Amino acid sequence: VASAEDVVVTAGAQQALDLVARVLVAPGDVVAVEDPGYAAVHRLLETHRARVRGVPVDDEGLVADALPDRARLVYLTPSHQFPTGVTMSMARRSAVLRWAGEHDAVVVEDDYDSEYRFADQPLEPLQSLDRDGRVVYVGTFSKSLLPALRAGFVVPPRSLTAALREAKRVTTWEGDLTTQGALASFLAEGHHAAHVRRATKVYRVRRDRVLAGLVGLDDVLRVVPSVAGLHVCARFRDESVDDRAVVARAAARGVFVEGLSTHRREQPVRPGLAIGYGGIDADAVPDAMLRLAAAVRP
Amino acid sequence: VASAEDVVVTAGAQQALDLVARVLVAPGDVVAVEDPGYAAVHRLLETHRARVRGVPVDDEGLVADALPDRARLVYLTPSHQFPTGVTMSMARRSAVLRWAGEHDAVVVEDDYDSEYRFADQPLEPLQSLDRDGRVVYVGTFSKSLLPALRAGFVVPPRSLTAALREAKRVTTWEGDLTTQGALASFLAEGHHAAHVRRATKVYRVRRDRVLAGLVGLDDVLRVVPSVAGLHVCARFRDESVDDRAVVARAAARGVFVEGLSTHRREQPVRPGLAIGYGGIDADAVPDAMLRLAAAVRP
Repeated sequence: VASAEDVVVTAGAQQALDLVARVLVAPGDVVAVEDPGYAAVHRLLETHRARVRGVPVDDEGLVADALPDRARLVYLTPSHQFPTGVTMSMARRSAVLRWAGEHDAVVVEDDYDSEYRFADQPLEPLQSLDRDGRVVYVGTFSKSLLPALRAGFVVPPRSLTAALREAKRVTTWEGDLTTQGALASFLAEGHHAAHVRRATKVYRVRRDRVLAGLVGLDDVLRVVPSVAGLHVCARFRDESVDDRAVVARAAARGVFVEGLSTHRREQPVRPGLAIGYGGIDADAVPDAMLRLAAAVRP
Repeated sequence: VASAEDVVVTAGAQQALDLVARVLVAPGDVVAVEDPGYAAVHRLLETHRARVRGVPVDDEGLVADALPDRARLVYLTPSHQFPTGVTMSMARRSAVLRWAGEHDAVVVEDDYDSEYRFADQPLEPLQSLDRDGRVVYVGTFSKSLLPALRAGFVVPPRSLTAALREAKRVTTWEGDLTTQGALASFLAEGHHAAHVRRATKVYRVRRDRVLAGLVGLDDVLRVVPSVAGLHVCARFRDESVDDRAVVARAAARGVFVEGLSTHRREQPVRPGLAIGYGGIDADAVPDAMLRLAAAVRP
């Protein structure tokens, strides 16, 4: 549990990551990222002149053994890997922390959508395992409220707090205090927690219907285990499938999904589909899944 | 006059300047600034690993002849130099643009508080003289509305617009669209223009009373000519005066002003006082000026 002085409030997760890069990344530094991963952050790191290296992701999350020796920092989404949806296993979490200790590196944990949890067991942040002050936790209200708020935060190790506050100050002073004040009241009065509880119920119905629709495609698509977030992934059993072609056929039928290969950086990526349910009514899911099935089996 | 596609909306002038630096400044680049000047921006430029060089300011503004040959960029406040309050002369404006053309450099014009104008002649931005696409204009709503809005903008030369939009996108996406939407309506419906007209009248009364109070100190302090903004400056005729000591004596009497030497970077700075009237009632100004006079003549 973080206290107020441990938190740096930012204009969304993207600014949070920008401040972290500004403080930690020098031009030419090697930075490791998940591959497939979140290209907007890779691009951000490149604007800081980092050398960005993709590390493969499997069903346990980032393959820690494949982390480059010289990386200064690794950017991770352990709760619900983007885009595959994998929750990082405990073994991999420990391995990443061990790697960070051995290489004097920093782990940046972007917990972008794990407010929405669909499993009984608790989902702890990687930072809760950190005994060494190596994990920078980044959170956002973009998924639980709305991206246009530009409200996010960092919980850094104590050693980085002052530098992050200074980076924030030189770029946007205190930020938008009007929005921050309204959000603080919204949180303090319990509205945010109540909203997430209500929204989780709504999303759970949609999610269950997406998963139900995938059952009939089990011979073609294997669902990637996940417990949180606003999308699920399924990988093609046949690795020669072109997921972009499937995405195009689905789009022609009015169903919008993403191909995992779109989020590939440099590592080979097994083809698959990321199916979001953040913007569709539960009632519309069954028909959409039928249309998706028709696109998967043309 | 800029059209919508020429404007990049930012989270205040500080983020605008951060984006400009991100696009234009490479590590090790020499960047020229006014000296005395605005330290928060100098610090920002230093976080981009620029080598920041102070250039002297006199009663015509930045001394263009003293600009370093190798600078990539010069940061200026031509309408109302911070902190001296000087309006840059036409000769100096032309000289700076000529220098920029000869050295393939960029001029960043920070027009931080010139909504409040107290002269009959119009006050044009330096950018209006630019025939060469060398001036990046930065504006803000922090002075006309409030800093907590974090609402500013850049009007760059066309050649830089795409890069600035991309820098904005990788750091904070579109920004706070809620605030931007409210501000757009406020502007479109004429409320902002009406507010500035009303506020200018209020500030003019305060400003006149500050200037009236300085008349009695004319043997000690020479008022720096200025036509805009929310503060006026006066320089000590005796260059050996320690303006910080005067500021401390004034503070002990409950009057808060700033010493010009506080804003010095590396150039010799003639001592003086910056007297703000943004946060004092007009009725309180005459007494405050009497107390300031007592601090000036201890």
